[in-house]
Amino acid sequence: MAIFLFTDFGAGDLYAGQVKAVLARLAPGIAAIDLTHEAPTFHVTAGAHLLSALSACCCEGDVVLAVVDPGVGGDRAAVVVKARGAWFVGPDNGLLAVVAARAPDAQVWEIVWRPGTIAPSFHGRDLFAPIGAWLASGRVGADMLSRRDALAVGSDGADLAQIIYIDHFGNAMTGLRAAHLMREAWLLCGGQELGYARVFGDAPPGGLFWYENSLGLAEIAMNQGSAARALQLSVGQPVATR
Amino acid sequence: MAIFLFTDFGAGDLYAGQVKAVLARLAPGIAAIDLTHEAPTFHVTAGAHLLSALSACCCEGDVVLAVVDPGVGGDRAAVVVKARGAWFVGPDNGLLAVVAARAPDAQVWEIVWRPGTIAPSFHGRDLFAPIGAWLASGRVGADMLSRRDALAVGSDGADLAQIIYIDHFGNAMTGLRAAHLMREAWLLCGGQELGYARVFGDAPPGGLFWYENSLGLAEIAMNQGSAARALQLSVGQPVATR
Amino acid sequence: MAIFLFTDFGAGDLYAGQVKAVLARLAPGIAAIDLTHEAPTFHVTAGAHLLSALSACCCEGDVVLAVVDPGVGGDRAAVVVKARGAWFVGPDNGLLAVVAARAPDAQVWEIVWRPGTIAPSFHGRDLFAPIGAWLASGRVGADMLSRRDALAVGSDGADLAQIIYIDHFGNAMTGLRAAHLMREAWLLCGGQELGYARVFGDAPPGGLFWYENSLGLAEIAMNQGSAARALQLSVGQPVATR
Repeated sequence: MAIFLFTDFGAGDLYAGQVKAVLARLAPGIAAIDLTHEAPTFHVTAGAHLLSALSACCCEGDVVLAVVDPGVGGDRAAVVVKARGAWFVGPDNGLLAVVAARAPDAQVWEIVWRPGTIAPSFHGRDLFAPIGAWLASGRVGADMLSRRDALAVGSDGADLAQIIYIDHFGNAMTGLRAAHLMREAWLLCGGQELGYARVFGDAPPGGLFWYENSLGLAEIAMNQGSAARALQLSVGQPVATR
Repeated sequence: MAIFLFTDFGAGDLYAGQVKAVLARLAPGIAAIDLTHEAPTFHVTAGAHLLSALSACCCEGDVVLAVVDPGVGGDRAAVVVKARGAWFVGPDNGLLAVVAARAPDAQVWEIVWRPGTIAPSFHGRDLFAPIGAWLASGRVGADMLSRRDALAVGSDGADLAQIIYIDHFGNAMTGLRAAHLMREAWLLCGGQELGYARVFGDAPPGGLFWYENSLGLAEIAMNQGSAARALQLSVGQPVATR
Repeated sequence: MAIFLFTDFGAGDLYAGQVKAVLARLAPGIAAIDLTHEAPTFHVTAGAHLLSALSACCCEGDVVLAVVDPGVGGDRAAVVVKARGAWFVGPDNGLLAVVAARAPDAQVWEIVWRPGTIAPSFHGRDLFAPIGAWLASGRVGADMLSRRDALAVGSDGADLAQIIYIDHFGNAMTGLRAAHLMREAWLLCGGQELGYARVFGDAPPGGLFWYENSLGLAEIAMNQGSAARALQLSVGQPVATR
C-alpha cells in the first residue's frame, strides 16, 4: 500500500515536503510516492484526464492525494472518491471527476472534518493529507466523511481532445485514449497532420508522429527532438482526429 | 520521526540522492523527506528565515539537515542546534541562527567528529548526513559533539524585511511574520503598494496583494498570475511596510 | 539495502513515480532513492561515466535501476550487471559498460523474463523495475535471467575527456578521474586553460578553476558563479589536459 501525490505544487518547490511531513507523522511506515507535482495549474479538466490515466498504477487500498486547487480557501467542497478499490482525496472542482466517471463502482464522500487550524491556501497539507493518512492506515473516523450521491463538478468520462501534459522531452500527451483510435487515424494539432508510429525508432530523426504512450494515451512526439517546441504546443490546445 | 532535508542542492540535481544513500545505510527505516533543495544559494540570511518558518512542521525528535554552505571546505564550524525538541545539523554560517534565536531552549554543539575521508565540497554527504542519521537513531557518540555556548554567527530572531523565497507560481515570501502585521498594513515592494487579501479569490484576476501564507509569513502574490514577474522580484530584495 | 534510480526521466516529470509505484508494490519496505533523473538523454557514454562515479555510494546488495534508453522498444537487450556486490539493471546500450569494465568481478545476465503487458516506451516501469524489485528482495527467478559472457556494448573503462554533467550551480563534471591527474595539470575547455584549486574559496570570486569534486572527478567551476555559462559548456564537449 502507498500514498500517492498528484499535485501542481511544483517538483522543486517546498510544498510537497510539508505534506509528506504530515503523512510521515500520521501514517508512519507507509510509502509516500510523488506521481507528479507538475500537473497543469489552470487546467483542472486536463489534470483530471491525466490523473485518470496515471491512476492505473494504483492498487486496492492505495490513497491518492490529488491537489490542483485554484479555488482553495473558497467554497468548493473537499471530497473523497473510492474508485476501483483506491481512495482519491481532493477538491470537488472536477479534478476527481474523470476517475469517478470511469469507475463502475465509484463512491463519493464529503470531508466534513476540519483541523483545529487550517491555512486557507494549503488544504493539501492541513486537510487532505491528514484524511489521506488516516484512510491509508484505516483510522479515518466515521464522522469525518459524509456520504454524497455524486460530485458537484462531474464528468461523463469521455475522452478529451486536448493536449493535457507536456513532458520534459517535449512529448505532448492528449486526453485521447489510444485504444479508441484506429492506427490509421491522423492527429491534427498545431497546424500539422501526424501519422501513427509504434515506437520512436520507427520515425526518422526529427520526424513527428503520434503513438500510444505508456499510459494508454495518444501522444504527439518527435524522434530525437521536442514535438512541443516544433509545433508550439501548450496544455489545453485542441487536437482533432481524422 | 523523520529526517528532513533543507538545502540548495537543486531539486533536479544529483546531490540529495547521495545524502539519502548515507541516511538509508545509517538510519534504515527512518523516512527522509525533502523540505526543499531550492533554498537560495547566496542568501544565507534569507534561508535562515525560510528554515525557521518551515521548521514548524518538525516534531520532537525530528532531524533537519540544513545545508546552504557557500563556505564549505573553509574554516566555518559544523554545528548541531536543538530547538523545540528537534535537531538541526548544518554549518555555523548563520543558517541555523534564526531557528536558534526563536527557540526558548536552544542548545548548541560543535561537531568535532570527522569521517575517515571527507570531500571538501560535500560536507552534506560526508559529515552532516552521518551525524543526522545517528541523531535520528539515538546513536550519536558523546565524543562526536562538543557543547558550545552559542553559534558563531547568531541572530536576534527579528523579522527580515526582504523577499526570502519565490515559488514556481511566482509568489514571493517575505521574512515578515504576518502575525506581526496589521491587516490594514501596506507592503511596499518593487515600486508598488500592496494591500491585504485573505485568499487569492478575494483579489480580482491579475490583482496584486499580500496575504498570510501557509507558513505564517507575509507573501506577495497575484491572483491567477506571477507577482514575481509582474514586479520583477528577486530574493534579497527589500520590502517596506506602511 | 536500497534501490537507486539513475535515469533521464526528468526530476519534475511523471515517470519516476510510476517506477516507484511498482517498487513499493513488489519490494515493500525497501527504500527507493533518486540518484538523479537528469542524466544526459542523448549522451549514453557520458551517462555511463556519471553512473560509474555515482555508484560509489552503493553497497553490497543494493540495486541500481539505470535507464537512459533512447532505443527503448527497439532490439537492444535488457541486462543485469553485478559489480562490487551491487546489482545494475538497464539497457545493453553502453550505459552499464563503465561500471562493468571497472569492477574486477563483474558478471552479466540478459533479462529474458517479460511481463504480460509491456509499454514499448517504458521498459523502466514494466521490465527493469520488477526485476530490480525482485533482485532487492531476493526473489528473482532463475529463469528470468540468462548468464552472458559480456555486454554487447562494452567499454575499456578508461576515463572520458568530455563534459559529462552540468549541475544547477553551473559546475561542469568531466569524465576524468582526478586521481589520474597531477595537481599541476591544466584543463583546456571552452577556449580557456584552467588551473587547479582545492576548494571554491581558494579561487577569487568569479575565478575559473578545476578541482576534485565529491565524486572523485575533475570538475570545472567558478567561485560564486556559473562556469557553464561563462564558458558556454555543454555535455559531450571535449576537455583536454596539459
